[in-house]
Order: sequence, then C-alpha cells, then structure tokens
Amino acid sequence: MNPSRYTPRIRRGDLLAKVMPAADAARLFQPGMTVGMSGFTRAGDAKALPRALVERSRTEPLGLTLITGASLGNDSDGLMAEAGVLARRLPFQADAALRRKINTGEVMFIDQHLSDTAEQLRSGSLPAIDIAVIEAVAIRADGSIVPTMAVGNSASFVQHARAVVVELNLAAPLALEGLHDIYLPRARPERTPIPLTTPGQRIGGTAIAVDPARIAAIVVTDSPDSPSTVLPPDEGTAAIARHVVAFLEGEVAAGRMGPRLLPLQAGIGTIANAVLHGLAQSSFRGLTMYSEVLQDSAIALLDSGHLALASASSITLSADMHDRFVHNIERYRERIVLRPQEISNHPEIVRRLGIIGLNTALEFDIYGNVNSTHVGGTHMMNGIGGSGDFARNGELAIFVSKSDAKGGAISSVVPMVAHVDHTEHDVDVLVTEWGLADLRGLAPRERAPLIIERCAHPDYRAALHDYFGRALLRGGQTPHVLDEALAWHERYRNAGSMR
Amino acid sequence: MNPSRYTPRIRRGDLLAKVMPAADAARLFQPGMTVGMSGFTRAGDAKALPRALVERSRTEPLGLTLITGASLGNDSDGLMAEAGVLARRLPFQADAALRRKINTGEVMFIDQHLSDTAEQLRSGSLPAIDIAVIEAVAIRADGSIVPTMAVGNSASFVQHARAVVVELNLAAPLALEGLHDIYLPRARPERTPIPLTTPGQRIGGTAIAVDPARIAAIVVTDSPDSPSTVLPPDEGTAAIARHVVAFLEGEVAAGRMGPRLLPLQAGIGTIANAVLHGLAQSSFRGLTMYSEVLQDSAIALLDSGHLALASASSITLSADMHDRFVHNIERYRERIVLRPQEISNHPEIVRRLGIIGLNTALEFDIYGNVNSTHVGGTHMMNGIGGSGDFARNGELAIFVSKSDAKGGAISSVVPMVAHVDHTEHDVDVLVTEWGLADLRGLAPRERAPLIIERCAHPDYRAALHDYFGRALLRGGQTPHVLDEALAWHERYRNAGSMR
Repeated sequence: MNPSRYTPRIRRGDLLAKVMPAADAARLFQPGMTVGMSGFTRAGDAKALPRALVERSRTEPLGLTLITGASLGNDSDGLMAEAGVLARRLPFQADAALRRKINTGEVMFIDQHLSDTAEQLRSGSLPAIDIAVIEAVAIRADGSIVPTMAVGNSASFVQHARAVVVELNLAAPLALEGLHDIYLPRARPERTPIPLTTPGQRIGGTAIAVDPARIAAIVVTDSPDSPSTVLPPDEGTAAIARHVVAFLEGEVAAGRMGPRLLPLQAGIGTIANAVLHGLAQSSFRGLTMYSEVLQDSAIALLDSGHLALASASSITLSADMHDRFVHNIERYRERIVLRPQEISNHPEIVRRLGIIGLNTALEFDIYGNVNSTHVGGTHMMNGIGGSGDFARNGELAIFVSKSDAKGGAISSVVPMVAHVDHTEHDVDVLVTEWGLADLRGLAPRERAPLIIERCAHPDYRAALHDYFGRALLRGGQTPHVLDEALAWHERYRNAGSMR
Repeated sequence: MNPSRYTPRIRRGDLLAKVMPAADAARLFQPGMTVGMSGFTRAGDAKALPRALVERSRTEPLGLTLITGASLGNDSDGLMAEAGVLARRLPFQADAALRRKINTGEVMFIDQHLSDTAEQLRSGSLPAIDIAVIEAVAIRADGSIVPTMAVGNSASFVQHARAVVVELNLAAPLALEGLHDIYLPRARPERTPIPLTTPGQRIGGTAIAVDPARIAAIVVTDSPDSPSTVLPPDEGTAAIARHVVAFLEGEVAAGRMGPRLLPLQAGIGTIANAVLHGLAQSSFRGLTMYSEVLQDSAIALLDSGHLALASASSITLSADMHDRFVHNIERYRERIVLRPQEISNHPEIVRRLGIIGLNTALEFDIYGNVNSTHVGGTHMMNGIGGSGDFARNGELAIFVSKSDAKGGAISSVVPMVAHVDHTEHDVDVLVTEWGLADLRGLAPRERAPLIIERCAHPDYRAALHDYFGRALLRGGQTPHVLDEALAWHERYRNAGSMR
C-alpha cells in the first residue's frame, strides 16, 4: 500500500516505522496469551489480525484467551474458533461457528455483564492483557488512539496491555474523530464519583491515551464494519412496539415521567430495534438514549427529531444506514457520544439517570424470571450482554419477546425458565405481540395470571393456567410442581413441540 | 406516663399536644392504606403501633400495604399478619407466622432488593405512603426526627408520607443522637453524584427533616429492640470462616487487594456473623465495613481493633452485646455511621467502594447459581434482602452455606437450584465447611467439578459428578439433564431425603 494513504493518519513520525503487514504483527502473539481486541456488536473490530492469527495458528495453535468489547464482525470469531486460535472467550459473542465450539465445550465461554469486564481487568480478577489490538481512525501526535465505530473495552485494554497493536482502518472516516468520550474510573481507593449527570455530557478526552513506546505494531486496513444483521420490523414486532409506546404514554399520563421520558436503552437485535422504530409513530419528541449500541432505529429517530441525542459504546448499522451516517457525520456530531462500555453500562450512571431498559428475552416464565441466553436451558445463544447492567440498576426493566417460536412449537412463556439471567426482582414489564404485563409491586402469585393472559400465545394459555392452578395446590410464595416445571422444555427436546 | 419523662425529648413545645396513646394514633389508619414503618432486621422498629393496629383490626380488618426497612422485631409482623392488619408486605420479613401467611397466599409479599424500595417510592412505581410510623430517640426543635438503632427507609417514608406518627422510645439512649447520617438522592433529573467516597464519610444531617405540621401523633414507648436471634459460631461455621479468611489473605498475597482489604459487607444471620467472628483470628487490622446491618461480630471487631470503622443501616445485637454497646456509645461515636438503606446498599456506592459481599445461600448449584430465599424452590424463607445489591455491584460476591441440612437429608449443593436469586454472572466465590471454590474467570463447565469437589458434602459428591457427567453428554454451555435437574428437590419432598 502506498504510504501516502496512511501517513496522514499517523501524526507522529517515529511510529511510521511500526507499520507492518498483519502477518508480521501476528508473530508477536504466543500460545496461551491473553489478548484484548476492540469490537462491539460487529462495530470497530480489528479486521486483519483475526485472519493473521488464523494463519499463524496453522503452524502453532495459539489457544488464546480473547477478551473483546462484545461480538465481532467479519466471521472473525468463527474463523478463530475453528482454527484453534481461541481457548477462552469473553464477555460476549454472536457467531454461529464459535457458538458451536462453545456448546461442545471446545472453547470456554465466560458470559459476563458488559460493565464488569473492565473492572475485573483493573482489579486483577481476570488475567493481565498481553496484547491489545485496537482499530483506529488515526494516531495522534501524542500517540493517543482515535477509535472507530466502537469504544467497547478498548481504553481498558490499552491501559492494561503490555503491548498494543493498532489497526489503522482507512475505510473509517476521519470525521469520526471527536465523537468519542474516553473516561475510565480510577483504581480504588482513589475512585471518585463519575461526574456524568446527563446522557450527552462529555467527561473525558476524545482519544485513548497511550505511551507511544507501547505501540508494537501498526497494521493498515481498508474495510468497513460488517453490516448489521437486524431484520426489519414485522407485524409481531410492530405490535410489541405499540404496546411499549402505549405503556410509556401511560407513565407520562400518570405523572411518573415527564414528556421526554427517561433515557432509553435498547439491546442489540431485531425486536429492540423494532420497538425504537415504533417510537417514530409516537408523539414523543426530544427523547434521549443512554445505551450500549445504536442501531438503524436510533439514527432514524435522530433524523426525525424524536430523539434529541444518543450516547452508546458502539454504532452498528445496515449498509444503507452506514452510508447515510458516514456522509452526514457533521449533522450528528453534537448529538452522538461514544463511550467506554464500562461507562455506557455503569451501575452508577444507569441508576443515576434512571434508564428505561428494553431488552430481548429468549423466554420468560409465569413469575417473571427471564432467560436471555440459553436455548433449551443449556445451549448458549449469544450471552447476557448488557441486559443485566440496565435491568438491575435502571428505573424500568422491560423485556420483549415474540410469544412463540418455531412455528408455534415453542412457547416463549413457560412454567419455569430453564435458565435464569434476570430474576423476578429485576423484571418490571414483559411484552409480547399479544400484550404487556406491568409487574411492578406485584407478588409472584399476582404476576402469573397477568403474564399468562397478557403475554402468552392463546394456544398455550390453558396449559399455563392449568399448571399454575395445580402449582397453587402445593402452596408457596412461588408455587411450582417441580417435576413438571421443566417438562415443556423436555417435551420440545424429545417430541419437537411444547404442545 | 409522667410527662417529665418524655418532655425533654420533644424539643418543640407545640408538638407536646400531639402526644397520645397508641390506640388513639391507630385511629388515623384506614383500611387499604399504605403504611411505611421504621425497622430493619429487628432494630429500630415501632413497638406500640403494630399492637395497636392489631387491636384496631379486631373491629375493622385493615388490610394494609406495609412497607418497612427490613424485618421487624417483637413478633409484630406475625401478630399483624394473623390479625388481618396486613394485605401486602414488602420488602423483607423474617417472621414465622407471617411466613406461613405468605406461603398460603393470604398475604402478598413483594420480595425486593433493599436498595430499590426508596427509589420506587420516589418514582411512583409503588403506591404513595399514607402514614409513616417512625421510632425516634428525640424530636428536635425544628421538628426533625432522630432515629434509634436503624435508619432503614425511614427518611424516605417521612419524605413521602401524608402524615407521620412518631414513636418516641425512652429505652433508646439519647446518646444515639449524632450516629446517623441522613442523605437521600434527589429526584431525577436533578440527581447528582452521591458524594460518598470512603466508608465512614458523613454526607448528610443527623436527623430526618420533616415539616412539624405533618407530625400527626407522638406515641411514647419504653421497650428495647428484640435481641438478635443469631446463633453462636459452631464447628461448621468456624471452618467456613477459616476458608474465607485464607482466601482473603491469598488476595492480599496476590496483590489484588491491600492489607486492609476492601470494605466488607456481611448479611444478617448466623453464618455471616460467624465469618466476621473468624476475622478476629486473622492478622488483618484496620478493616472497614460498609454493610446493611451490624451484628455482634462487628462490635467485637471494633473493640479488638480488627475493624477501624463500620457503616450500616441498622445495629442488631444480642441482649448482652446491646448492653455493652449502649453503655459505651461514646467509644463508637466516631467509628459507626448509620445511613438510609438506599445509601448503605446503593449500586453507585457499592461499585465505587468495591464492596466484598458475604451473604448466605440456602442452596447453590454446580454452575454457581444461588437460591437465597425459597425453601424447596417454592416456599419463602425471609427474602433476598440486600444480598443482590452487594453481589451484583460489588467487587467480590462470596456466598456461604453449610454443605447439608436436616441431618444430611438435604444437600446445599444441587444439580440445579429450584429458585434463582443470584445468577452465575454475579457469584464469585462459594464456601461451605468443606472448602472454597473461586469461580472468577471460569466457564460453567469448569465451575462444576470445582464446586463439587470443594464445596459439596462428600456423601453427595458421587451423585453430583454422575449428574454432571451425564449432562455433559447432552452438551451446551451449561449442560443439564432437564428431566432430572430438579429431581433432588422432588425426592426430598416425597421421600424426606435427597439421597
């Protein structure tokens, strides 16, 4: 590649000598190392090193512990898993091939709240980072690294890593510079309050500080992020959106929230994205988001004025929306902030701002416990992500799901979830296309009939009522017939249907 | 009662006219009202009104929604439940008679994280408080109320209540005045960072402010708190304590903590109390506590110098230790702070300080999920209390339990817990008398053999290994044989033993 293409983005002469092919940088990696890579929900991930590590692993299986922000794009996780690059992976993934390796036990997956990883690195509860791999828009004169479409855990990785590999991505527009707000809490006991009190506030610098001597390699790439895989809204997700919007309008009417609500968070994925799209049909204006990821819906709502500003840790868009965004960055500059995921998901901030958390459930039970991660109670889908950060500490935890799956063979409302990610203590509102159950202030015995009537698919309501009725005969705060509680899952496993 | 006994504690003349018998104050209460009462783990509870409400309910069942700090003493919860005073109860209880009414469904119990209730009152997610009943040491000239041995949610109740009934308890020493630190977060969006950065810091006033016109009645009492029901350490709890102390010493040796550790929290109950007693045999000095309740062990550690200072929301002591405490309050004045439970348990502070949380599990499973509340998965014991506030947001979540119960008929380590209060995402360390399992950074498949070998009773290890082995054949991130997962609980229910 002609150096004139990347030289303007490396604003420090002594670092030009660190430019090298990815294959050369890959030789820095030794078997068993702990590696921190940028990337959060397919955005801002390193593009070249994952493939170079796959090549490197052909001669010497690396068996790395790989820590990221969240999921990677470009099939990187799957390729690395299949090549033996990965022995351990945290805190989140969303790749079909890696998922298979996790569920066979070939890769150890540590499923973490996304706010926790940075703290565990700081305290030494996780192994020290040997090498950080960070995608960048540019390297400044002081050596500091300007991230691309995600911040994720990159600032923490750089802070703790022995060596840093920068992937300078020429496809990332220079105009991204200035969008980021890099603040990390100090180590204890010198920790002070995080000064953020409004969703759009800037409390740090715009790049990741690093001693340039720790930059061991610079690899130049020129490829965009993988586009979002989110599906467009359909009839079911549109109905879910209407229920959520009506509920929020009711909160305003009841005087529990002002007309601009509280800051919104929406999890990655089709349903949460669709709910946000539904806000475009609402009378709300001037809303704010304090979320971990911005999807197409957030950009559309910023354009329409429904959303005044949005804070997150990454931006993950479809190809079309990505083009619209990068060609109009100036329009969004004052209205979008990208933060480390420790700050976007931080318990302190989530509680202070009073986030309304919108996240997707795989299934929930008649008492309001939610399974976000384990298909059939045992097999990992993607991971808990940030859903727990927001559900536990926010003002309102709303979980959404379609009421059934696999053509009706699976009910998303079950007697007992086969894996619990969010307990009934943390779940305020459940929504399916059939309706919404507001669980606040209700005991489990009161929740069950409400959840069944409002949220379950009509085909499953009688069976759920029957279960609850027989459970009541056994008594208790949370009545169950334990030898039947998970029978619906077993029935699906053995007979292909919960019916 | 001779007014000369209480007049010095009511430092505002116009309030003397509000002194009345409890039976008269009870007439302020109407059926269906929402009432907030002081009291947290048997400390600082109103002594007279609960009984007066029981009397009042004989002619007209009150069916109140009763919100407290945590559990009440003096059998108040049970007497009120049996007399029909209570229709709904939150956020915690520990009374045998009320427990029965909850488990038959006669009283609706809403089991909450103890940090959440104040926030839900502020936001209107819970019904508005009609009357607050607050036990006090004194009423100051400005009308403000000096709490007794607990702050709990009292400041929030007073802030939100239409009317306030003060129970002036002459048995509570005046010297308690000054021990409290009353700070409540502001309503959103004016919420600012909570300025507390060290466990002993004072950030508020020493009494609960109230417009004196809202004080509707003053009832004078003269009876001490119910003594703690905690049992003394035994061989099993002493072994648990040794494992915890050795683990903490290891953290210091590994450089993950300084010699004074991080602030300690210990849940209510015999085992957590015993673990703290175990610190008296350690070489630690100058430790701090940032907890919700101080038990006998905390006072003993303050006396021995192992503990430098302690912050909590209540002090619950045995009769002997209570005497020692009240006769020596001056000695503790600079070393104990009593706060609202919203602050003692606040996610912002728990994360900032990096609390080490020590809480008791009823049972845990081979993957690290914890049941803190539901006997047999269905019947309420006491409630989740503050365990989730500390486990989720703190630096280290340690759960302790004896490895078996009912003479060995119940294993505390099971294939799958029958109720989840703390998910594997939130549980760092599990301890029984047999040993300690450090789960940090481990995937579920790695946790299982460690938990079985370190924590399970030897009589149950083979059966747990057998289950895990057969579960592995089915694959997954968290392997299970779902139709057997809860069979141990059913076996105990049907045959009286999990064996």
